[in-house]
Amino acid sequence: MAIQSLTDVPAATTDLLQSVFAERASTAADIGPGFSDAVSAMSAFVLRGGKRVRPTFAWAGYLAAGPTRSDPERLLTVCAALELVQACALIHDDIIDRSDTRRGFPTIHREFEARHREAGWRGDAADYGEGVAILLGDLALAWADDLVTEAGFDPEIHRAVTGIWRSMRTEVLGGQFLDIATEASGDEASVAAYRVMRFKTAAYTVERPLHLGAAVGGADPDLIESLRSFGTDIGIAFQLRDDLLGVFGDPSITGKPAGDDIIAGKRTALLSAALGTLDATDRRAAEVLRGRVGRPHTAGELAETLAIITDSGAVTAVEQQINDLVTTALTTLNASSATPAAKQDLTGLATAMTRRKY
Amino acid sequence: MAIQSLTDVPAATTDLLQSVFAERASTAADIGPGFSDAVSAMSAFVLRGGKRVRPTFAWAGYLAAGPTRSDPERLLTVCAALELVQACALIHDDIIDRSDTRRGFPTIHREFEARHREAGWRGDAADYGEGVAILLGDLALAWADDLVTEAGFDPEIHRAVTGIWRSMRTEVLGGQFLDIATEASGDEASVAAYRVMRFKTAAYTVERPLHLGAAVGGADPDLIESLRSFGTDIGIAFQLRDDLLGVFGDPSITGKPAGDDIIAGKRTALLSAALGTLDATDRRAAEVLRGRVGRPHTAGELAETLAIITDSGAVTAVEQQINDLVTTALTTLNASSATPAAKQDLTGLATAMTRRKY
Repeated sequence: MAIQSLTDVPAATTDLLQSVFAERASTAADIGPGFSDAVSAMSAFVLRGGKRVRPTFAWAGYLAAGPTRSDPERLLTVCAALELVQACALIHDDIIDRSDTRRGFPTIHREFEARHREAGWRGDAADYGEGVAILLGDLALAWADDLVTEAGFDPEIHRAVTGIWRSMRTEVLGGQFLDIATEASGDEASVAAYRVMRFKTAAYTVERPLHLGAAVGGADPDLIESLRSFGTDIGIAFQLRDDLLGVFGDPSITGKPAGDDIIAGKRTALLSAALGTLDATDRRAAEVLRGRVGRPHTAGELAETLAIITDSGAVTAVEQQINDLVTTALTTLNASSATPAAKQDLTGLATAMTRRKY
Repeated sequence: MAIQSLTDVPAATTDLLQSVFAERASTAADIGPGFSDAVSAMSAFVLRGGKRVRPTFAWAGYLAAGPTRSDPERLLTVCAALELVQACALIHDDIIDRSDTRRGFPTIHREFEARHREAGWRGDAADYGEGVAILLGDLALAWADDLVTEAGFDPEIHRAVTGIWRSMRTEVLGGQFLDIATEASGDEASVAAYRVMRFKTAAYTVERPLHLGAAVGGADPDLIESLRSFGTDIGIAFQLRDDLLGVFGDPSITGKPAGDDIIAGKRTALLSAALGTLDATDRRAAEVLRGRVGRPHTAGELAETLAIITDSGAVTAVEQQINDLVTTALTTLNASSATPAAKQDLTGLATAMTRRKY
């Protein structure tokens, strides 16, 4: 399908992914019929899911450059590759987080655990499910790289794209590592939470996709710099919004229980801000809050935990940070040489991502 | 270091890996100090280990072509990339197999489990170790692909190399999947064991490395066909030898307990041959053997299990298969246009891999 506007990008990406999977189905079948089935499960996971945020930002970066060369098919290949990296990240993250469902379906490791159990196979069903999910995540990552390799860019663009691609993959894996290490160590420093937001979310979700698209569109270094700076700010603001919703979000809208991130023990910037202030102003409240992190709450405890965080001023402070980041990002964007249409699109995306209620 | 003969390839590959890790250390440090430590653990794992079998075959394939163009540095980059794919495969396999040690050191997931425990961190230490190992395996795979992308081949060679690279990664992941699925389902068909040997071992360890080297060396299609055929045969013979050693190997030489593969429930071609024959000739022995697969053995049971397999004729049959495969492989090799020196090297490798006692 031809892409007329940014809103066409998700469906076009899904279409391309569908042909990629169709083309690769016979390779999988040649290796073995059981492998075909497993690959089908991975394909279904990729095809049914997601808002295609990264492809949308990649396309916005491309349009921002007012591309003189027209490389939309090659860019779409990169969009599909971004979604395959994301499939690897989600499949492996779901193992690490012991998640049972994703997008309303069983996670890949749970799905294969169930297949093992239903077939009455030997050995531990959970171990089997996890093993298959590790391998299918690896496969998604390998196929993502194949797509970038085969996209067929001119040598100069190819060099730029693969350089960004290289950085992005290391950054997201580094961010994921820091996320689990920070949670395990109970690191309360805001710099730790910031690094996770910077690399696991901002670079991977906004900055690098924009950067990839801009490079394909032939953006000059100043515009690339502006778009990356915009992307980092919006990406962090997006994560801060997520942190607020993860504690104060309306469960009927977010689909997650109130206080979820506190109960799960996540080391967010919100928690870091609350503890940092309370250590100086109300040590008893700080101790209560600290004792609540990573534990189930009664209804009464939950109300108290939320009140402690709010009263610490952390919510106001984080809302202010979001505002400041969005303001800075939009100022950078508007001062850049991005096309007017792209400025409008990116402003809309920035607002939607940082003002959302879910 | 300059490579004078095949025996120089392992050290040269390790040297290059060392510079790759040194170059990437600062990127890891920029993401976060904790991430640096994790990357160091992955680097140490790669640097201390292995016989560099895949690089050696890649180099042999290159020499077999009597390379007119001289691309040794680029080929060495591919050799380093092969070892990074192997790092991913081993780190992830060790999670899947719940292995505690590898090459005399704790496996990556156990190492990070121990770090978690020693630091007295929150949450489950084993889950943490596994999470880190999943991410470090992913990182090794991503870096492997980066190396191939950045090797700097001419467009034509690059296209050939990336096509083979693409096939190889999907094949090994498919083979690993079939391995765990076959073990879980208890599939006794020899075709199942054959597929695992073909894709998890032969393609990944011998055929595709030879193919990569031959493509870099500019081998013609006939020579490539011969080398791949040689590689498949030797790779399968290598796995069959491994199967025999996994049951009958001398524990003081193999470092594994006698009968290990039977106790672990592996679905090898050896077991498949034994059960297939016994079902027709001695159903009681077949049932006893079937009941022993995947269970601990007393010393008496072990002696009986080994005798049942030997008496079935399966050991003789598998030895015969190894002989036939090696004979066919060497006939193919000698009839090919490979250089005389490469023929000699490959004959030596083939013999060492299929006649070994460990």
